[in-house]
Amino acid sequence: MNVHVALLHYPVYNRQRQIIVSAFTNLDIHDIARAALTYGVSRFYLVTPLEDQRQLIERLLSHWREGYGSTRHPERKQALELVTPAASLAEVVGIIETDCGQKPELLVTSASLAEATLSYSQAREKINQGNPLLILFGTGWGLAEEVLAMADSRLAPIRGLSDYNHLSVRSAVAIILDRLMGRINDG
Amino acid sequence: MNVHVALLHYPVYNRQRQIIVSAFTNLDIHDIARAALTYGVSRFYLVTPLEDQRQLIERLLSHWREGYGSTRHPERKQALELVTPAASLAEVVGIIETDCGQKPELLVTSASLAEATLSYSQAREKINQGNPLLILFGTGWGLAEEVLAMADSRLAPIRGLSDYNHLSVRSAVAIILDRLMGRINDG
Repeated sequence: MNVHVALLHYPVYNRQRQIIVSAFTNLDIHDIARAALTYGVSRFYLVTPLEDQRQLIERLLSHWREGYGSTRHPERKQALELVTPAASLAEVVGIIETDCGQKPELLVTSASLAEATLSYSQAREKINQGNPLLILFGTGWGLAEEVLAMADSRLAPIRGLSDYNHLSVRSAVAIILDRLMGRINDG
Repeated sequence: MNVHVALLHYPVYNRQRQIIVSAFTNLDIHDIARAALTYGVSRFYLVTPLEDQRQLIERLLSHWREGYGSTRHPERKQALELVTPAASLAEVVGIIETDCGQKPELLVTSASLAEATLSYSQAREKINQGNPLLILFGTGWGLAEEVLAMADSRLAPIRGLSDYNHLSVRSAVAIILDRLMGRINDG
């Protein structure tokens, strides 16, 4: 298992499809870190170019990793150990290259079925092969086109029975990690 | 599709395995309502015996359903239309019985593999048959034993590649709805 997850706060769209830097959301960190640990993700990168946001994230992490939260909520500490703030996607790719000896493949969820280039079962196989894979998620109204264009592969969008397509990024990460790495112990 | 979801704030355990009433979490409402709408869930019941909590939930819902939020965020309005506050599980069962002409089957996620009585594929078949099904989720440290004992069936717990078992309830709901009602458009 050599899967990494990055949550990007830039470059992402806002509701008017302008490119913005979004502010980080406390619950994104907790929920995604807990899902990442559940599914065996190596590292969860929180990416924002804003220095003060990264400092705030570090303060928050140290509460849970070293402060009162670490003894009171040891299972949070364990999950939050996976979180690494970074300034840019390029920095994340660099860290993984240093750690793993090779650049990761970049994987995104596409906005439409027609754009998908990799099936979930193909992605599962790829993960089993063990080469580093970095799955990118966007906050706000989604990853900017320039990031999507950089990706090596695109998974089909998550669809249920309706056409409604506004899952929170927390839910989307949980579902995609389950599709790619979940074990369904079935009858 | 005749699937209903209830999030119980009582009776649930706290960290010390005492039975408590938990306070509702704003993001649970949004995330679970959005997942419920995505997967075609009929209704999402927020269950708490505390009158003031239900009033607070109603105020919050009216902001998104009728107030400023409804025009500013129409996709939130659509999801939050599914939310129904209720005082107890018995009340929820009564509402579904009135709406559907029969009591729902109660489904929970079990804490261990050994306890599971229904596979995910069997649950998918059950859903396709169209009889009302109510899936119960607990806040805090999980549903009290008395609720688990009332359930007609138990699904296997969600497992990834590690033994870590502390997903947020928001993530757990998203994953279970995807396992039961997701369409994987693969290859």
